[in-house]
Amino acid sequence: MVKAFLPPLVVLDPLLTSWLIEDIGRGDRATQGLEGETKRLAKAQWVAKQSGVICGLPIASRIFQLLDRKVDFCAVVAEGEFCDQGEIVAKIQGNVEPLLMGERVALNLAMRLSGVATLTRQYVDAIADLPAKLVDTRKTTPGLRLLEKYATQVGGGINHRFGLDDAAMIKDNHIAAAGGISAAVSQIRSFIPYPLTIEVETSNLEEVEKALEQKVDIIMLDNMSIEMMQTAVKMIRQQDRKVNIEASGNVTLETIRQIATTGVDYISSSAPITRSTWLDLSMNLELIKA
Amino acid sequence: MVKAFLPPLVVLDPLLTSWLIEDIGRGDRATQGLEGETKRLAKAQWVAKQSGVICGLPIASRIFQLLDRKVDFCAVVAEGEFCDQGEIVAKIQGNVEPLLMGERVALNLAMRLSGVATLTRQYVDAIADLPAKLVDTRKTTPGLRLLEKYATQVGGGINHRFGLDDAAMIKDNHIAAAGGISAAVSQIRSFIPYPLTIEVETSNLEEVEKALEQKVDIIMLDNMSIEMMQTAVKMIRQQDRKVNIEASGNVTLETIRQIATTGVDYISSSAPITRSTWLDLSMNLELIKA
Amino acid sequence: MVKAFLPPLVVLDPLLTSWLIEDIGRGDRATQGLEGETKRLAKAQWVAKQSGVICGLPIASRIFQLLDRKVDFCAVVAEGEFCDQGEIVAKIQGNVEPLLMGERVALNLAMRLSGVATLTRQYVDAIADLPAKLVDTRKTTPGLRLLEKYATQVGGGINHRFGLDDAAMIKDNHIAAAGGISAAVSQIRSFIPYPLTIEVETSNLEEVEKALEQKVDIIMLDNMSIEMMQTAVKMIRQQDRKVNIEASGNVTLETIRQIATTGVDYISSSAPITRSTWLDLSMNLELIKA
Amino acid sequence: MVKAFLPPLVVLDPLLTSWLIEDIGRGDRATQGLEGETKRLAKAQWVAKQSGVICGLPIASRIFQLLDRKVDFCAVVAEGEFCDQGEIVAKIQGNVEPLLMGERVALNLAMRLSGVATLTRQYVDAIADLPAKLVDTRKTTPGLRLLEKYATQVGGGINHRFGLDDAAMIKDNHIAAAGGISAAVSQIRSFIPYPLTIEVETSNLEEVEKALEQKVDIIMLDNMSIEMMQTAVKMIRQQDRKVNIEASGNVTLETIRQIATTGVDYISSSAPITRSTWLDLSMNLELIKA
Amino acid sequence: MVKAFLPPLVVLDPLLTSWLIEDIGRGDRATQGLEGETKRLAKAQWVAKQSGVICGLPIASRIFQLLDRKVDFCAVVAEGEFCDQGEIVAKIQGNVEPLLMGERVALNLAMRLSGVATLTRQYVDAIADLPAKLVDTRKTTPGLRLLEKYATQVGGGINHRFGLDDAAMIKDNHIAAAGGISAAVSQIRSFIPYPLTIEVETSNLEEVEKALEQKVDIIMLDNMSIEMMQTAVKMIRQQDRKVNIEASGNVTLETIRQIATTGVDYISSSAPITRSTWLDLSMNLELIKA
Amino acid sequence: MVKAFLPPLVVLDPLLTSWLIEDIGRGDRATQGLEGETKRLAKAQWVAKQSGVICGLPIASRIFQLLDRKVDFCAVVAEGEFCDQGEIVAKIQGNVEPLLMGERVALNLAMRLSGVATLTRQYVDAIADLPAKLVDTRKTTPGLRLLEKYATQVGGGINHRFGLDDAAMIKDNHIAAAGGISAAVSQIRSFIPYPLTIEVETSNLEEVEKALEQKVDIIMLDNMSIEMMQTAVKMIRQQDRKVNIEASGNVTLETIRQIATTGVDYISSSAPITRSTWLDLSMNLELIKA
Repeated sequence: MVKAFLPPLVVLDPLLTSWLIEDIGRGDRATQGLEGETKRLAKAQWVAKQSGVICGLPIASRIFQLLDRKVDFCAVVAEGEFCDQGEIVAKIQGNVEPLLMGERVALNLAMRLSGVATLTRQYVDAIADLPAKLVDTRKTTPGLRLLEKYATQVGGGINHRFGLDDAAMIKDNHIAAAGGISAAVSQIRSFIPYPLTIEVETSNLEEVEKALEQKVDIIMLDNMSIEMMQTAVKMIRQQDRKVNIEASGNVTLETIRQIATTGVDYISSSAPITRSTWLDLSMNLELIKA
Repeated sequence: MVKAFLPPLVVLDPLLTSWLIEDIGRGDRATQGLEGETKRLAKAQWVAKQSGVICGLPIASRIFQLLDRKVDFCAVVAEGEFCDQGEIVAKIQGNVEPLLMGERVALNLAMRLSGVATLTRQYVDAIADLPAKLVDTRKTTPGLRLLEKYATQVGGGINHRFGLDDAAMIKDNHIAAAGGISAAVSQIRSFIPYPLTIEVETSNLEEVEKALEQKVDIIMLDNMSIEMMQTAVKMIRQQDRKVNIEASGNVTLETIRQIATTGVDYISSSAPITRSTWLDLSMNLELIKA
Repeated sequence: MVKAFLPPLVVLDPLLTSWLIEDIGRGDRATQGLEGETKRLAKAQWVAKQSGVICGLPIASRIFQLLDRKVDFCAVVAEGEFCDQGEIVAKIQGNVEPLLMGERVALNLAMRLSGVATLTRQYVDAIADLPAKLVDTRKTTPGLRLLEKYATQVGGGINHRFGLDDAAMIKDNHIAAAGGISAAVSQIRSFIPYPLTIEVETSNLEEVEKALEQKVDIIMLDNMSIEMMQTAVKMIRQQDRKVNIEASGNVTLETIRQIATTGVDYISSSAPITRSTWLDLSMNLELIKA
Repeated sequence: MVKAFLPPLVVLDPLLTSWLIEDIGRGDRATQGLEGETKRLAKAQWVAKQSGVICGLPIASRIFQLLDRKVDFCAVVAEGEFCDQGEIVAKIQGNVEPLLMGERVALNLAMRLSGVATLTRQYVDAIADLPAKLVDTRKTTPGLRLLEKYATQVGGGINHRFGLDDAAMIKDNHIAAAGGISAAVSQIRSFIPYPLTIEVETSNLEEVEKALEQKVDIIMLDNMSIEMMQTAVKMIRQQDRKVNIEASGNVTLETIRQIATTGVDYISSSAPITRSTWLDLSMNLELIKA
Repeated sequence: MVKAFLPPLVVLDPLLTSWLIEDIGRGDRATQGLEGETKRLAKAQWVAKQSGVICGLPIASRIFQLLDRKVDFCAVVAEGEFCDQGEIVAKIQGNVEPLLMGERVALNLAMRLSGVATLTRQYVDAIADLPAKLVDTRKTTPGLRLLEKYATQVGGGINHRFGLDDAAMIKDNHIAAAGGISAAVSQIRSFIPYPLTIEVETSNLEEVEKALEQKVDIIMLDNMSIEMMQTAVKMIRQQDRKVNIEASGNVTLETIRQIATTGVDYISSSAPITRSTWLDLSMNLELIKA
Repeated sequence: MVKAFLPPLVVLDPLLTSWLIEDIGRGDRATQGLEGETKRLAKAQWVAKQSGVICGLPIASRIFQLLDRKVDFCAVVAEGEFCDQGEIVAKIQGNVEPLLMGERVALNLAMRLSGVATLTRQYVDAIADLPAKLVDTRKTTPGLRLLEKYATQVGGGINHRFGLDDAAMIKDNHIAAAGGISAAVSQIRSFIPYPLTIEVETSNLEEVEKALEQKVDIIMLDNMSIEMMQTAVKMIRQQDRKVNIEASGNVTLETIRQIATTGVDYISSSAPITRSTWLDLSMNLELIKA
């Protein structure tokens, strides 16, 4: 079973509400214009029009609840389960109005997140028998970081940091600004909350050497050739068994397996988020005869 | 030159600010830890790592401005222009801190929107010599609707409605809830702001007939075969020269041209938004020697 | 029965909450100072101190609910019903504290909206036997647009657009800026969401002619004499049976009937909103003996 | 010269911004659709289409500034000055876009507030030679309290409390809930911030007596006959020279003078706010030739 | 029993929610990572690790409720009661997740407020047998004013004004800016909401004299010697029996009693808020066996 | 020179603005009532009425700027510098109105933060010659966490995590909920963002042993005797040279030195924040003669 967690409702609800308002604006002209019918009960189902990993059902459920507490959203497919084309994903029951008013926002989120989870799963499966793990990046859709990183987990990947504040990643531009890895690391280390880890981006063995000297927590091998990565991993392991090694750059479904065999601990890739497309889902609705 | 418009800053700024806060959290541990350097001037450039239609530069410029008024963002490529791999897209100058702190959010938006604009352009080009026009849908990433619809325009497409409140689209589920097209249209018409247009989704000729009787403004032909669409278009044109005809469903780069030849006015497709991936852009930074 | 709709609660609640906070500030010094009594049950009733059309009861009910879920607000008069002076409008039961704390905000809204609905009803009644319909404008109290337009509906009127984004109205100042009707319309048409209607303000027959050439959706006859309006209507009907004709300017209870007889479809007037005064309502409260 | 004050901008700006967003929604379809012209300079003027007291010009100026810092709004008529029909009220210069986009919100506010100031002035003038002063109430349009009370000042009136928290007014319903004036006052007094004044609503001489016993700061004579008011004033003055006496209820332009002659210090009336209509203002715009 | 009041929930909840979000950020990594256990029931208790006056239990209760409606928070010690070290203060029951996620914010508030209430109580007790009353000031922690002033009440003190808007206190800097007490008072009096009281800060007998002439409501004797205060009190009482006299400056547990004997009505001190430290409380948790 | 950093303005400004609004409410009755004078220039100075470490001047400067861009705030004492009683801390010049309106909020923050920095400095100085470092905790005033942790840095301390999301601290209650250290760590590790460190709270040597087995990043020795701490440190160092050791519990100015000599890396204490009182600062103002 998938292990993933959503932020608590005090954090999540304001996001969901803002998205409902984005779509509804001043009112749902079509649905609210329906006479009386909007108070009638209906049942609806969500159907997968493509196969893939389903993600976002608890969020969809909450969206309908924010419109009307009495909507009953019942997931048929478990979060993170692979689902075939044509399968019923969820069954919903409630008044017509909240069902129609929340439909698009709920589906948009679930389609986007399922797309991310589906591509993540492919990357994860490609290295499932190797010790290296797939992690995500900060290349996420603005406003959706919490949810796209949740989809990474649902797809089987592991989250990297969530923002500029929960780890210090020293990248090429920071090194350029500080004038070198040593200067950058020592300046930053003396300054940040002490439990935060420091990661340094390296692009050649000389930089790896400097990062090792600085005893950073994570060394990222960025855009290196497979050979250079192998050498770097050896070099690092000889000096420090605890530092984490992360490979990054040009990670595709074709290259990921070979990268994993170099012995790195983590492979970070934005691809599951930036290269994924939406998983097609649709909703059918039927009035419940009185 | 592309014609597209962003919402005014009173509408846009709160979105951009919320996205900066999402990424920065309690502070940029790496950048803010750099001693003194963060007050030094740097110049940076954005480079296209893939070819495609560039979109989002005015937004990126604003993002840096929200961090520091003194950042100078100079677009090298015009908004909506096609750009080759390796081309410089923009040149930026300013203090190191806002450049590094805003980098990721600005790039994430530009990469996402350029991806949408690029795929939109392909759909638009496929029917450029025909009268039918490409329009978008409400399948947009939650929170990004204004900007993804802006990207549609930048790509050469035309916007459909922006929310549930600026047109009344009567879809299968509304018809199901009302018990028929006639009931749905007449209930809704008597109710909505009078300048709003009414669009009805139809899936066969009988429904087209009913929509015509109701004198709706737009008839959507949903998921019809090419033959049925041709018949529907003829039928509609004979009775009403002013109603707009919109084709929808199964619109791909392979099918769009044939659909356009049926004589419909508009072809709506979520594909440029839901099937597009990010256009890869990156930023290089260099300190300006004092 | 009146047909009108309020925005859904996700849209409405933040407005109502902000108004409660405006009134309550840091606390209700008088009510909260009452010992123990504020937890005692009371019943209250709203009484009409003037006759008129009642509007805003569902909103008042929601206001009390936002303070305390257990308040029971029971409308005695139906929304949109005409009520005589002295009649009981609503009966409320609940703890003393929410009843006293919400009283002013709830009454203020209901008094304002009932005033609008009452004057709207007079305008509507004046042309009830004619095909022309009364519509509102964007001259609404800042912050109250959704509710004042709801009051228009409750009074029997029809809503015009809700903002600058749900229809394109090309007014004298736009025409001045663009350098003419033709330029203005064609520039705007190529740009806006395609389902949006275009309305042009005209002040003489020449402008009407140009608007007709541009095949706009609505032609507004602004501040024309009755004779000019009659001529304009004929001219328009001969060329285009589908365009909507809207009269505007100098609409009063004295002139509206004559304007309606010119054959226009809609008469827009800000008067029911800008010329209405509040309908006087008051609340009496009585403790329920334990 | 009028003496009135607006809340500081940290308080005012969020209100003005929310009202701009209410009107603009996702964008100004007409204005933003104008090609290039929106960047051209224009000059505009505001003209009074009715005579009255002008109020709201500094607010209007700020609204345009929130859209574009470069708009120059120049008041021709001083805030609080009486203005004849046809007079120019203000001259504005700036780009076409902010002028057209902010026009409606700025005018709506100024028209509403000028209406309030105009009627307030009439009430104030009616008792100008007498010591009694006109004060407003909490019957204000939800969301506009700060501005409508500003208009009271501009019209020459004096503000009563701004909310439930800046004075303790013990009204009939509080007395009903506490079981009497003495109980209500003593419970509340022991509880509220000590500089807060306590006002008690009385409707007969017995209640006035009890209020005097409680040594409250303000005694409101609510809905009393002129004779009873005279008796009450005498009674109060004999016992306490410092307590303020406020008359309330049935205050109209016809009755206010007679009420003032009873010797009360203040006459509170919601009429200038609840019975006023908008003062008609309009804006003309002209492009500045390059 | 203590008499104190919290702002209503429409005012309080946004504050509490913002504090939960401050602590939780993007999620509670430790608690949410616990498998399954977070849905298990637990019981917890709050224990006083120092003796003092307990304050903030209703707020703590609400914080847990905002995370999960089903948490049952039962105060063992009454709000405002003195509690010995080691005593159980409250018992809580609910799912593990909300208990652990809300623990820190709820305790932080209760510890801070109990600290304020405890020191307030000491000041209050020191003058309990004298007519003078202890009042607080505007020296409160930014963001916590409503709650720290609530703690003042819980500790037995009385609140002074809550902000710059609910009374006009004319301090040395205002007098300096206006050029004297008389000018300052008369300018301000003609301007402010009429029920607001005016307080003037005086530092010598000459200023007291001027304040008396201006018939202000409260005269503050600021940083005067005991002798000067005695003289001032006499001087004031001879001329005006109704004006309130407030002593301020150098109020400590050592000096307060002597100050109180001068005959002043109120003694204002920021010390209970600015000089108090937190009262140590802790939470123990135990799983409920299934 | 002190090294400390504030969050960027996009994060800081909303907090400062909310605190200004808390104090100002609907307007500054005294200051705004001053005629004309509020537009006159004044100079002011901040004076230390107690000696201590100054903290918060950049924040105070920003507060005045949010009221009026033209206020010039010039720090005389450097941030983090020790200042004697009577010294001038800052000089300010600007219009009277923003100076008086922002005075209280700016001083309140600076007084609170200087109090924290002053006590922090004492703790830091007590162990300045030893390798152990002082770190803060999550016991911070709700709403002030970013600023109180900034004051920790200004005082010379080091920040611990900022919230529940930037490190996983497994405390007694988590261990209780999971049923043991091993279960808790392994459940949480598989779940959290990978760069996050895991800290475990231990109260005896057996728990230290289990934490070591789980290869956590930080082991906290909670409330242990000095002897037990010494044993624990030895035990840990023998097995793992990289794990950080943090001492916690009963840290006072009396005990901290002895704790530091046990060889722990960090000593966490809430005392500098929960046990500090405000450092007294005041502002004098003088009009600048025209």
